[in-house]
Amino acid sequence: MELEELGIWEECGVFGCIASGVGPSELDVPHVITLGLVGLQEARGQEVAGSRTHCTGMGLVNHVFSEDRLKKLYVSNLWIGHTRYSTSGISELGNCQPFVVETLHGKIAVAHNGELTNAAQLRRKLMRHGVGLSTGSDSELITQLLAFTPPLEQDDDPDWVARIKNLMNETPTSYSLLIMHKDIIYAVRDPYGNRPLCIGRLVSVGDVHAKGKDNSETEGWVISSESCSFLSIGAEYCREVMPGEIVKISRYDIQTLDVVPRPGGDPTAFCIFEYVYFARPDSIFEGQMVYSVRRRCGQQLAIEAPVEADLVSTVPESATPAALGYAQTCRLPYVEVLCKNRYVGRTFIQPNMRLRQLGVAKKFGVLSDNFKGKRVVLIDDSIVRGNTISPIIKLLRVSGAKEVHVRVASPPIRFPCYMGINIPTKEELIANKPEFHDLAKYIGADSVIYLSVEGLVSSVQESIKAKEENENNFKTNKFHAGKFGHCTACLTGEYPVELEW
Amino acid sequence: MELEELGIWEECGVFGCIASGVGPSELDVPHVITLGLVGLQEARGQEVAGSRTHCTGMGLVNHVFSEDRLKKLYVSNLWIGHTRYSTSGISELGNCQPFVVETLHGKIAVAHNGELTNAAQLRRKLMRHGVGLSTGSDSELITQLLAFTPPLEQDDDPDWVARIKNLMNETPTSYSLLIMHKDIIYAVRDPYGNRPLCIGRLVSVGDVHAKGKDNSETEGWVISSESCSFLSIGAEYCREVMPGEIVKISRYDIQTLDVVPRPGGDPTAFCIFEYVYFARPDSIFEGQMVYSVRRRCGQQLAIEAPVEADLVSTVPESATPAALGYAQTCRLPYVEVLCKNRYVGRTFIQPNMRLRQLGVAKKFGVLSDNFKGKRVVLIDDSIVRGNTISPIIKLLRVSGAKEVHVRVASPPIRFPCYMGINIPTKEELIANKPEFHDLAKYIGADSVIYLSVEGLVSSVQESIKAKEENENNFKTNKFHAGKFGHCTACLTGEYPVELEW
Amino acid sequence: MELEELGIWEECGVFGCIASGVGPSELDVPHVITLGLVGLQEARGQEVAGSRTHCTGMGLVNHVFSEDRLKKLYVSNLWIGHTRYSTSGISELGNCQPFVVETLHGKIAVAHNGELTNAAQLRRKLMRHGVGLSTGSDSELITQLLAFTPPLEQDDDPDWVARIKNLMNETPTSYSLLIMHKDIIYAVRDPYGNRPLCIGRLVSVGDVHAKGKDNSETEGWVISSESCSFLSIGAEYCREVMPGEIVKISRYDIQTLDVVPRPGGDPTAFCIFEYVYFARPDSIFEGQMVYSVRRRCGQQLAIEAPVEADLVSTVPESATPAALGYAQTCRLPYVEVLCKNRYVGRTFIQPNMRLRQLGVAKKFGVLSDNFKGKRVVLIDDSIVRGNTISPIIKLLRVSGAKEVHVRVASPPIRFPCYMGINIPTKEELIANKPEFHDLAKYIGADSVIYLSVEGLVSSVQESIKAKEENENNFKTNKFHAGKFGHCTACLTGEYPVELEW
Amino acid sequence: MELEELGIWEECGVFGCIASGVGPSELDVPHVITLGLVGLQEARGQEVAGSRTHCTGMGLVNHVFSEDRLKKLYVSNLWIGHTRYSTSGISELGNCQPFVVETLHGKIAVAHNGELTNAAQLRRKLMRHGVGLSTGSDSELITQLLAFTPPLEQDDDPDWVARIKNLMNETPTSYSLLIMHKDIIYAVRDPYGNRPLCIGRLVSVGDVHAKGKDNSETEGWVISSESCSFLSIGAEYCREVMPGEIVKISRYDIQTLDVVPRPGGDPTAFCIFEYVYFARPDSIFEGQMVYSVRRRCGQQLAIEAPVEADLVSTVPESATPAALGYAQTCRLPYVEVLCKNRYVGRTFIQPNMRLRQLGVAKKFGVLSDNFKGKRVVLIDDSIVRGNTISPIIKLLRVSGAKEVHVRVASPPIRFPCYMGINIPTKEELIANKPEFHDLAKYIGADSVIYLSVEGLVSSVQESIKAKEENENNFKTNKFHAGKFGHCTACLTGEYPVELEW
Repeated sequence: MELEELGIWEECGVFGCIASGVGPSELDVPHVITLGLVGLQEARGQEVAGSRTHCTGMGLVNHVFSEDRLKKLYVSNLWIGHTRYSTSGISELGNCQPFVVETLHGKIAVAHNGELTNAAQLRRKLMRHGVGLSTGSDSELITQLLAFTPPLEQDDDPDWVARIKNLMNETPTSYSLLIMHKDIIYAVRDPYGNRPLCIGRLVSVGDVHAKGKDNSETEGWVISSESCSFLSIGAEYCREVMPGEIVKISRYDIQTLDVVPRPGGDPTAFCIFEYVYFARPDSIFEGQMVYSVRRRCGQQLAIEAPVEADLVSTVPESATPAALGYAQTCRLPYVEVLCKNRYVGRTFIQPNMRLRQLGVAKKFGVLSDNFKGKRVVLIDDSIVRGNTISPIIKLLRVSGAKEVHVRVASPPIRFPCYMGINIPTKEELIANKPEFHDLAKYIGADSVIYLSVEGLVSSVQESIKAKEENENNFKTNKFHAGKFGHCTACLTGEYPVELEW
Repeated sequence: MELEELGIWEECGVFGCIASGVGPSELDVPHVITLGLVGLQEARGQEVAGSRTHCTGMGLVNHVFSEDRLKKLYVSNLWIGHTRYSTSGISELGNCQPFVVETLHGKIAVAHNGELTNAAQLRRKLMRHGVGLSTGSDSELITQLLAFTPPLEQDDDPDWVARIKNLMNETPTSYSLLIMHKDIIYAVRDPYGNRPLCIGRLVSVGDVHAKGKDNSETEGWVISSESCSFLSIGAEYCREVMPGEIVKISRYDIQTLDVVPRPGGDPTAFCIFEYVYFARPDSIFEGQMVYSVRRRCGQQLAIEAPVEADLVSTVPESATPAALGYAQTCRLPYVEVLCKNRYVGRTFIQPNMRLRQLGVAKKFGVLSDNFKGKRVVLIDDSIVRGNTISPIIKLLRVSGAKEVHVRVASPPIRFPCYMGINIPTKEELIANKPEFHDLAKYIGADSVIYLSVEGLVSSVQESIKAKEENENNFKTNKFHAGKFGHCTACLTGEYPVELEW
Repeated sequence: MELEELGIWEECGVFGCIASGVGPSELDVPHVITLGLVGLQEARGQEVAGSRTHCTGMGLVNHVFSEDRLKKLYVSNLWIGHTRYSTSGISELGNCQPFVVETLHGKIAVAHNGELTNAAQLRRKLMRHGVGLSTGSDSELITQLLAFTPPLEQDDDPDWVARIKNLMNETPTSYSLLIMHKDIIYAVRDPYGNRPLCIGRLVSVGDVHAKGKDNSETEGWVISSESCSFLSIGAEYCREVMPGEIVKISRYDIQTLDVVPRPGGDPTAFCIFEYVYFARPDSIFEGQMVYSVRRRCGQQLAIEAPVEADLVSTVPESATPAALGYAQTCRLPYVEVLCKNRYVGRTFIQPNMRLRQLGVAKKFGVLSDNFKGKRVVLIDDSIVRGNTISPIIKLLRVSGAKEVHVRVASPPIRFPCYMGINIPTKEELIANKPEFHDLAKYIGADSVIYLSVEGLVSSVQESIKAKEENENNFKTNKFHAGKFGHCTACLTGEYPVELEW
Repeated sequence: MELEELGIWEECGVFGCIASGVGPSELDVPHVITLGLVGLQEARGQEVAGSRTHCTGMGLVNHVFSEDRLKKLYVSNLWIGHTRYSTSGISELGNCQPFVVETLHGKIAVAHNGELTNAAQLRRKLMRHGVGLSTGSDSELITQLLAFTPPLEQDDDPDWVARIKNLMNETPTSYSLLIMHKDIIYAVRDPYGNRPLCIGRLVSVGDVHAKGKDNSETEGWVISSESCSFLSIGAEYCREVMPGEIVKISRYDIQTLDVVPRPGGDPTAFCIFEYVYFARPDSIFEGQMVYSVRRRCGQQLAIEAPVEADLVSTVPESATPAALGYAQTCRLPYVEVLCKNRYVGRTFIQPNMRLRQLGVAKKFGVLSDNFKGKRVVLIDDSIVRGNTISPIIKLLRVSGAKEVHVRVASPPIRFPCYMGINIPTKEELIANKPEFHDLAKYIGADSVIYLSVEGLVSSVQESIKAKEENENNFKTNKFHAGKFGHCTACLTGEYPVELEW
């Protein structure tokens, strides 16, 4: 609840599309892009009260071409886009993506999800070379690095693989990139695989919704931060881009050009919070559905922190998979205690004193007949600052709950993230405050317990490891290109790379 | 799902607020009204793709006073509002409420939910008297009827009760009205009680969220079509306005002025579809929570139409209470199979061919790992035209469901409504079409069964009757002012009053 | 300048169009209406800084019909519209025109320019009859009076002429009306002829811009408050509607149904300020071009108030005809001393202290080389409150003018108008203040002289009287239906009818 | 008329402001900037139907700083802005100014008016150096050239004069630049002085409108493409920036850092069309008021092309100074024949066939009584394509003009401009078409004569040369830094620099 309520995260998504075949395609590429971005927008930011920035529109306006030329580009049968969830409501114009620059070899466009851990050094390096930087964004750094000519390149034959590898050597993480040049899209994931990126195949709509789709004709390819939007645009999921992989996608085929290894044999470091919060439940990462991981977190939580109670419920809607998992393992009934007031959050009503006093309560209707006189286990997906759960607990008690036990389906956040996620400062995190020592009292619950870091990691890795042992196929092999791990830096302070300033 | 998807209903809500006590109140009446209307808006129309008209803004603009005078009115510590869900997206300006007219005794404002069954005769009668009608709305008819002076009235002392009773004699149903004159609000429900109306008490915010609230001070009164928004504005539920009751609410007290009886001892006729679809689950009608009725419908459906299966699921979100009830009675696990794409519906993307082909599928993500290889019972709240459930079934099958059995938690709609609900024409209703005889085949399900009319009626009346037998208190007595029943006209063709044209 | 600057006037315009002939016409009636209203908007309000309300859009939305039905009406080949200049920027919704009501005989629509001098009594009379009034507008009064059935009327055959004459008996002035019923437009001017109304003939575009147009085919008729917009829509001017005349315009012909006489043989009372300020210079009233009257005012002013000077100039742009007339009569050169900053007025820049100090100066560029060291006669069209001319005089002096003599081409306003014009209260009028006795000193001029009332009246009536003597044709006869005069109430306090309250 | 009508020109303006003194100033710099830009907007583009792009808003949004940081910058007491008139209505986002980049020494912002004649070579040079270019604008080229470190510069001490001179060596014309770095504004005009730039002094508002202002305190400095907006912001005109001059403006003083000479002793080449069309009449260039030059063009035209006629008139409003000059020299009366319909042009009415047929006629009201039966000399400022004057002539004839003689107060345009003005292609210019040989017949006039090139040049240079001979002061000396001339390339094909591609 609280992640959603506070809107403390800043997360992006990228999406690209290319139509297959020779000549003009019947595929409406701008439509597919827009739908794909909308799907991502939903996933990567969840539902936050009125504060979402639809960067979509801007993202499709590039810095070099006019509307008319844009249409011509679309006619060229491919495009890339970008969406961004912003807590501020005002996004800086200069940060809009895709970022387009003209080079000696024509224009390149870059859409980027992630954050370069060594951005400050890269900026200084470029400016020392005499390049003026017109935005504060990492995307501009990436395009300017790509504009540099590698030593062995011939004047009339740009070597984009060499340029991309040069970029990857300059900065280890974190980025998932879509790079467009002429009629090619390059899809690149950083060697640590910190941000997600996956590939889907567009088939004719009749086919995607029918069985036996393997024989269907390929209408095009999509590359997306998440697979969740694939079904709603008529695409089927193919596979993830591997950590360090450079994939070249043309209108005719898909090719892996290279896989850049991690320095020193480091393990992969896919962001574990993608499972906990960002991703839409129907997305697939590392071969497993996010919903399943969340339910397993609930099951694990039931094992770690059981409680005598009459029913299990959820703070709708992000905690529902965990609540169902908890209920199933505890063999307690799953019951709804709150319903959401969808319109309140979205109305531009100036908050006055009465409204502020009502707080989060105004966002929920209470189904009191369902829990009057009962002991409730309330599953939440996160408690970060600790000030949104209290009014909910109060509402339940006033409406007749006998006891309210809170179980949190993720561990407490204690450290900042430098790889793309905008977390409150350390001081604001409840886990770093004195109140944390008697959190139940602070939030007004009868008890409160978080999932352990080990519990979360095992919920995430369990089925991947099970697959590893049983299978020996293409996909799992790919993940094995080096050691396997997850980034838990915000929970443990252990960052995948050394941070430079 | 289908009611929501098609947006075939047109339903309104009214909301009024009056601050208690002498002199200026600290209560921010416009704020309370706006929040109340927003709450109703959510309830009475559900979430329909992009087609909702926020009449709120217009509703607060009246036809006589300028903005400045409006502010002065607010200072007078009371106001009434109106919200309307419209399928067309464009609401006629002239239909905006509250409708305000100036009479010999000053201005009166009227907000109205319902539809006058004899509107055509009333129009002719008024025009014959020389009144020009400036809108096509029932609200204007009501205000013009109220503007007429009853024979015994003194010139300087308007007899509003006589005027209201005169109106009620002219038209039997259906209406719930809020009438504002000077510093009084009259709340009126038609003798059949076809549309809902209830009263709440505003207490200080601290009090409403604390126990022992009986001693709290009254800050004001709210009158609303539904109780669902009460909690979110810091009000507690008091009671319903009875069928035929005229309630006078001043800043100092609440009084029942009269209860107009039904002709010929007819039973009451509260719209049964308020339980099935319109109302928000946390609203209370006739002493029971709507959520509980919906869950009972699911339980009843499990008794009427059980099936061998592995899991029970819902078409989110309106069918969830019924699905949980069905699962509980069948002792089958409740599992989520679909997640909603919130943003798709709300995006103003021009639908092209590909999108139209994708249909309702684009609104859902599929949680395939949850049901692969399983037999699914899918609970829906309604199947009206029959063309939205098929693509969902197809989605589930393509994603691995072994069997899909559909159970509908309400009976089929077969007849038009003339009391405020805009239903598709008889010919469009699936229950009146030949395909209905083999509906399972038509929609692609393994089986499909609706709840019986008797099952619905008993789910609704069961606990009311139980209370009647056990209790003998004020509230149930009130419902007994005459025979007790529900309007099931759209299901059975039995209308509560004879229809005139 | 000041009338324009202060925006103290509130003036309306009406416009109607009907296509000629049988069956669907090729004439695009909505387009003609919109263009006609735009032309009026310009004329009847002049250019006021950002405060103009485009009522056009609203005016075309009627209170009874939906958009779709509106389209059908257009297809019916006629429509009426209304435009209003409002000083407040916020126009009351309920005042929007055309006002449409349904009567026993179908819908009637009314567009109205003017103000009923006995509106208060009419309101009381209607309400006593039991009619609730939903707006504060005179247009509603007019429609409700028209909805009343005259005693001799047959139930199935409405007698609109009797109804219109009944209305004209109930209220003497001031109104110019367009009444639409089915496929007829009735054009009505009050017996005093206080507000203007004229008729034009639409010919094919080729014809209107070619000579010998008398043989051209009539495509339709337009009725407008002013003739100024005729040329720009391809219409030619026919004639004015006479004071008291009821004209019936169908698709086939134009007929005078009746001419209602003034009580007691009163003279006509066309508003003299239409010549001074409201009308566009190319409009024609009473057989003469407004521009010519304004130039004559300047010539008359030169005779009444000559001055030793080097050049004559204007406060652009409304005073230019008078300035050219003054210069011609005085045989002094006409020279431009100011140019207008068009964009400043229209920019939504929040005024801060610096801007307020700059005052009206920010609206003008100064052409200092044109008058450095010279004695300037500055012609203005009006000085009402007296606080906008001073900064202009200051600007000219600072930029090098040796002397600045102000001459005002209209007499001082001293009294309120009750016939449609919103004038500042008596106390705010400079002519009623002590400062008026030494106005030159107050505004910083070397001298200041207004045109006399007699001078204005003779400038207006001179050429009309000349025509009367020479001609004996249809048009002038019409004006002679009774005595001939002009309303100068705001200048002299002599109102054309006795005012009731 | 036609320049205005066709909107064929694309012209920009720059404006900067810096508050004087130490510490925070009371001067509201953003306000001054906005007003200054609005004034320029009016001047540099005139009034074109609905097609003006207010780049102002965007211009103040820079590419590096967020709103919050922008506010901080404002607090720093200086800022620069840019406005652009665009015929397309849609301006490319990437072209928005000021263009801001971060360099090793902090951010620099650049606002630019003009067009680099060797832009293509500069782009290639930069890209070869590895710089990716994110827009197609000259401003980005300029910032990237400024970001380059000159050889002798110390790492911690940027030599901006050297950098600016390096830029000026790379590209000779045409540009007027404002460059902002920290608390300094550099104002730069290209060596040919092709685009205007001048400096004003902000004094307290009381002072600027009072005499004896020489003793007033300096509140700040403004630098602007034109002086026209100075009065409306409370500034007094100081002087022009000289061709090739680099001026450094700090909060404490103004200094000329250097004057870069023209190669080969070329004469200056100030754009002569600034006098003819772009500039506002009250602006001052080269010591003379634009209005005076335009009147002299009319006088010269009367000498070159007199005609037997009854009156002289103007196509309002840009040709009015020339018409008054012509009338004065010819000793014919100056009479208005047309009045402008201000609102028509600005209304977003979709043009249908009727409107298109009406053409330019819909923009004018005709004052027929002023010229019926008379021989009219109609002065226009330009005839470029030749298709807008014909309908005006037709209007006058239909309304009674006996003869219509057209005199054009500028020579025909025959060649493209490569220095900032967007001219129709050579083929579209009427002077290059066969119809030009019998232009009077083509446009329907009795005669038509353009001003000669020599006549225009002498109208422009006459008073400058007169001053030169008589005076020996600071300002004229400055203009003498080399030979003196004007750019007449669009009239004669003689470009000031050799064009490279």
